[in-house]
Amino acid sequence: MAYIDLGVDEHEYPGITGLLAYRPETAKPFRDLLNVLLRDPHSLTAGERELIAAYVSGLNECVFCCTSHSAFAAAQLDEGMSLVEQVRADLDSAPVSQKLRALLRIAGAVQQSGRNVTAKLVEDARTEGATDVEIHDTVLIAAVFCLANRYVDGLGTIPGDDTHYIETTKRIVELGYQSRRVPSGA
Amino acid sequence: MAYIDLGVDEHEYPGITGLLAYRPETAKPFRDLLNVLLRDPHSLTAGERELIAAYVSGLNECVFCCTSHSAFAAAQLDEGMSLVEQVRADLDSAPVSQKLRALLRIAGAVQQSGRNVTAKLVEDARTEGATDVEIHDTVLIAAVFCLANRYVDGLGTIPGDDTHYIETTKRIVELGYQSRRVPSGA
Repeated sequence: MAYIDLGVDEHEYPGITGLLAYRPETAKPFRDLLNVLLRDPHSLTAGERELIAAYVSGLNECVFCCTSHSAFAAAQLDEGMSLVEQVRADLDSAPVSQKLRALLRIAGAVQQSGRNVTAKLVEDARTEGATDVEIHDTVLIAAVFCLANRYVDGLGTIPGDDTHYIETTKRIVELGYQSRRVPSGA
Repeated sequence: MAYIDLGVDEHEYPGITGLLAYRPETAKPFRDLLNVLLRDPHSLTAGERELIAAYVSGLNECVFCCTSHSAFAAAQLDEGMSLVEQVRADLDSAPVSQKLRALLRIAGAVQQSGRNVTAKLVEDARTEGATDVEIHDTVLIAAVFCLANRYVDGLGTIPGDDTHYIETTKRIVELGYQSRRVPSGA
């Protein structure tokens, strides 16, 4: 159970969903930020951007975020969950483009510390065709999930069950991050 | 210099200010989030909340964010920069209330990992009088600065000069985070 009383049934509102319900004033800009980064039109597909989120959340060992964003990525990548699992297991050998691999390496550096991102990592991404916006958004997506993972685990929230992840994936892929969780009893 | 072309003079727009100018779509919700957490009416003073931001930024060794938020905290705390420096140098002996010390310990755990926050750290804060919202917002402020520090350093931005920090402190304390940086040549 969460360390504070979220005022909701946590089995209906696991992970970040209970936190967003608890504090709507901070939830609004946070949802807006996620929507711009992960849903708005972009030269990286939504699946690729969700893969960055899942990869960082896995490195941070955040079960709720990693399970959620792995599912969101899988639902929006032609290769599905198999690719997500290969990236998380071994980025060097995973069958992604060299550009996406270079961006994921930048994301992995950000997960440790912003200071671990080097000019060489950025130059490697650029050599593989990454644009400035793609580099910028990769760093920011990775940083945002260093926030989200700490928020979810720092307040001791519980992970969801399979039904939660299936329903949420459907909602996020269809409606984006500005949509609200509707509990099954509602 | 930043790893990407921000389209501004970085000496006029150091640290996060150049990033916010570069990508207004993500800047808007990010500023809104900072404003709710650090400026809106709250049972923790603005100075106390900025102290949490400065403390976490110091642990992450982010020069721009730590210098900025130390200045914002000092400007809004009766004890000024001396207290900020004592907290950053040795939290255990710094002359803050037991409640604020317990909240700063939670923030320090979040800086490492959300998984480092324990029921005991939260219970200690509650014993010293911390409310659920104070505990929630401490975790979220600490997490937001784990984002900001990675964003600023992960894109290789430069720190500001003294003039920048003095001008920005005046603007943020007076107008909050939704206000814009006005370069000296404008």
